Amino acid sequence: MTRKQPPLLSQFPYHFEAQTRWDDNDIYGHLNNTVHYRLFDTAVNSFLVQNNVLDFRNSEHVYLVIETGCTYFAELAYPDPLIVGVGIAHLGNSSVRYHTALFKKGGKSPDEVVAAAAGHFVHVNVNKENRQPVSIDTASRDIFSKIMINQSS
Amino acid sequence: MTRKQPPLLSQFPYHFEAQTRWDDNDIYGHLNNTVHYRLFDTAVNSFLVQNNVLDFRNSEHVYLVIETGCTYFAELAYPDPLIVGVGIAHLGNSSVRYHTALFKKGGKSPDEVVAAAAGHFVHVNVNKENRQPVSIDTASRDIFSKIMINQSS
Amino acid sequence: MTRKQPPLLSQFPYHFEAQTRWDDNDIYGHLNNTVHYRLFDTAVNSFLVQNNVLDFRNSEHVYLVIETGCTYFAELAYPDPLIVGVGIAHLGNSSVRYHTALFKKGGKSPDEVVAAAAGHFVHVNVNKENRQPVSIDTASRDIFSKIMINQSS
Amino acid sequence: MTRKQPPLLSQFPYHFEAQTRWDDNDIYGHLNNTVHYRLFDTAVNSFLVQNNVLDFRNSEHVYLVIETGCTYFAELAYPDPLIVGVGIAHLGNSSVRYHTALFKKGGKSPDEVVAAAAGHFVHVNVNKENRQPVSIDTASRDIFSKIMINQSS
Repeated sequence: MTRKQPPLLSQFPYHFEAQTRWDDNDIYGHLNNTVHYRLFDTAVNSFLVQNNVLDFRNSEHVYLVIETGCTYFAELAYPDPLIVGVGIAHLGNSSVRYHTALFKKGGKSPDEVVAAAAGHFVHVNVNKENRQPVSIDTASRDIFSKIMINQSS
Repeated sequence: MTRKQPPLLSQFPYHFEAQTRWDDNDIYGHLNNTVHYRLFDTAVNSFLVQNNVLDFRNSEHVYLVIETGCTYFAELAYPDPLIVGVGIAHLGNSSVRYHTALFKKGGKSPDEVVAAAAGHFVHVNVNKENRQPVSIDTASRDIFSKIMINQSS
Repeated sequence: MTRKQPPLLSQFPYHFEAQTRWDDNDIYGHLNNTVHYRLFDTAVNSFLVQNNVLDFRNSEHVYLVIETGCTYFAELAYPDPLIVGVGIAHLGNSSVRYHTALFKKGGKSPDEVVAAAAGHFVHVNVNKENRQPVSIDTASRDIFSKIMINQSS
Repeated sequence: MTRKQPPLLSQFPYHFEAQTRWDDNDIYGHLNNTVHYRLFDTAVNSFLVQNNVLDFRNSEHVYLVIETGCTYFAELAYPDPLIVGVGIAHLGNSSVRYHTALFKKGGKSPDEVVAAAAGHFVHVNVNKENRQPVSIDTASRDIFSKIMINQSS
């Protein structure tokens, strides 16, 4: 279910600083709606790579996207630096459901920073060759457990 | 609500032929999940432009995206030509909720072509300057009524 | 060397029809300068794929880009359909130098259609694993010879 | 003229740290050739915005791209952080010719960091409405003079 109220930065355990680019702004002068997904994709995969959960070149399994969604509350634009908030709402046998949000980077406390957009992002762990789902291993589950969030958030 | 079963091409009143590009394929050799949204955005706006519902350069109102979502059922890839299916599930005072889907273009009947991805896309009609919602006029409603679909689809 | 005068469509042996997308337009309301390269990349690779010169998933060699350039003569914009003109200016042992140009699609004769942008695009044929240059085979040379152009064009 | 030898980071007066994104990698597992231009565009415009030479929303003049080029010496890839080197090779009445290069960010001295790609980027200052060239004012020239480089570099 898409969340209809903008979450706060403090509700997300993983924060990824994201740079905006000149061509992220479309003809309406704001971040095109697809850029949000590019940043969610980058933030989630960066978390996986940094924690050795994913080696997208060499490992036998990779995480493919099976569902995404986003609600847009306020306009964002280049050249503003942004923060992507990421947390895991559900961890299944082979899938991971992330809650994601996009924030304008500022000097305020995470309790006061309100999301400009909030989404979800679902990965399934598959064999790289045959694309069949495979169970997420224990080492990865330990990593994922560190950024679990309350499902009601 | 995200639909979990892949719809058929015959369920969509508007069909938009979409070209794929070399850089649509990501490192996994398939259309990156964000490309689907770029094509939904293009198909919906092309419908609006072709039917004179939107003049994105000169009109006083524009349609901004406030919510999107997509479920991915099968992989797509450049250089395959695609079809974007578009229909309207709900027409509000100032907003339009589209159902969208992405199909690999082929020779089969629309009754047999199954979506590789299905999404939704919500536009709100706003004043270009102050970004406040404005009512959709009668001429536009007449156009929209031509591609209404049963909400249960 | 960058060509400073806009070429005509009739100067290019291979014509590739290219679709524009909503997010190709940047904040200045025209095709962002990087989109031209995305279309050149797509047109050249489509020529290779259609003629069985490149099987980018399975073959032992691939064509990597080592140099590109573009001069912009006139603005282009979504939703206009475009034509990419492609010809080969030089065929080396392992490299191919393409001349490319971008045209607004219209009803006029190719002798009268003037480029909005013109560029070059240099591919080198390499082994997919070690990225070392490999000679272009005879079958490929036969295909390339069909779209050779006078270097002065 | 395209430079054929990779320059050093120390040859560029302006350094812009650039983030890579998941979908910058194409099917060959490296930065697609068009991403380099997106980063050049972002680095140059960021220099202009930070120094108040460009207010792309409100000013009466904007800088449009009329020529670009890039030579690729080595592959780059997400998730590596990069540095864009920028310097001005020629300052005309209404145009600015930048030399640009892309470097993998590392701990070495700028004298030892060799470019993975080097390009040029030419802006012309135009009236936003009629797109006619306008002279670059003195205040802007003062800013530009700070990042002039020897044309032979």
